Amino acid sequence: MDQVQALAFDVFGTVVDWREGVAREVARVLGPAVEGRALADAWRAGYQPAMEAVRTGARPWVNLDVLHREVLDRILPAFGLNTVPEDKKADLNLAWHRLDPWPDALTGMERLRRKFTLVPASNGHIALIVDMARRSGLRWDAVLGGEVSQAYKPQAKVYDDAARLLGLKPEQVMMVAAHPSDLASAAGRGLRTAYVHRPDEYGRGAAQARPANGRFDYSVDSFIELAEKLGV
Amino acid sequence: MDQVQALAFDVFGTVVDWREGVAREVARVLGPAVEGRALADAWRAGYQPAMEAVRTGARPWVNLDVLHREVLDRILPAFGLNTVPEDKKADLNLAWHRLDPWPDALTGMERLRRKFTLVPASNGHIALIVDMARRSGLRWDAVLGGEVSQAYKPQAKVYDDAARLLGLKPEQVMMVAAHPSDLASAAGRGLRTAYVHRPDEYGRGAAQARPANGRFDYSVDSFIELAEKLGV
Repeated sequence: MDQVQALAFDVFGTVVDWREGVAREVARVLGPAVEGRALADAWRAGYQPAMEAVRTGARPWVNLDVLHREVLDRILPAFGLNTVPEDKKADLNLAWHRLDPWPDALTGMERLRRKFTLVPASNGHIALIVDMARRSGLRWDAVLGGEVSQAYKPQAKVYDDAARLLGLKPEQVMMVAAHPSDLASAAGRGLRTAYVHRPDEYGRGAAQARPANGRFDYSVDSFIELAEKLGV
Repeated sequence: MDQVQALAFDVFGTVVDWREGVAREVARVLGPAVEGRALADAWRAGYQPAMEAVRTGARPWVNLDVLHREVLDRILPAFGLNTVPEDKKADLNLAWHRLDPWPDALTGMERLRRKFTLVPASNGHIALIVDMARRSGLRWDAVLGGEVSQAYKPQAKVYDDAARLLGLKPEQVMMVAAHPSDLASAAGRGLRTAYVHRPDEYGRGAAQARPANGRFDYSVDSFIELAEKLGV
């Protein structure tokens, strides 16, 4: 592990709490009568299928604002929201730019950054990641993923680029994510892996099963614990 | 000017002092007997011609490490250096990753970042810009240019991408550079412009002429003065 020089982070769910952030924005834009968490869950559920057309090559790469908006337009009627004005929909669509980090994220990343180069290896595009970082105080050394790779995880290019664009070998980069499938894909491209348990990603009490011991290089409960394990 | 939300910086010569930094690295790697500043000047003189083959499409985009190395190999014999070992040439080639900011740069950019998104719009690639920033404490909100645009200034794509990738209109981005030609190209793509006078870029006493008043939106002597003029 001594050769690891950079950490590549999944963002949605790993660095930030998308569910509470989207629910808060739903309440702000559409009012408290709308079920914000349920809408967040439905929005997120449409996310993987929306990317699939890009992954298969059926459509050219488009950014997450485009995909999020398509999903939003599709799910609003199910919430009885058939007449949301365009300006409110455009505003709400940027909810994903305005998500808050998990409580340990800023402190943990500030420590990790002393020793490691920190980059997102996210499906988020540059403007989204920049808006989120400037709003919350997250600090990235460069913004990868998005337009830089023009691919959506688990496409190999996103993981390969995280190493290549930093001038590193795959084994010099560690993927940090709350999602075993993401980490498994990263490991398949030669990256090191750190699983971060985020039991509240889908709401309190909806905890995901923790992956088996030894499946990933590290398994931690916070970025602070990861910093400790990495000796920084 | 109130609509400007992001500042896109030229890096070599505008943010960092390439001449003194390269000369220092020449002394470190090759010893004090070599004329470091003269070698830096010769190296830099080969930079524009080296990029031209990429700009014309005669060769695919390659990063600055590749171009710098080609120029270095070509100029070393003129300095009587015909037998530099490969490991020293590889080390020296990374001199461009290890340049120091001008004295006002860190303080000025820290102020500017309170209000504006800061990105490089540089010909430098991601690994170079990241190495430089981590070494010197520069803080970028995202690293543009390089692999992101796969073009070399003054190609329009570099300027266009600075706005497009931040989700902004060209007039919401201000190019900050010490080189009038760079600013003129940026203005041609609709960006705002700030000229920063760097009289020592080519050595003390080799001051460039200051562009005529009114040619650019701002003309300043430091990033601190730019912050003052932009009210931050």
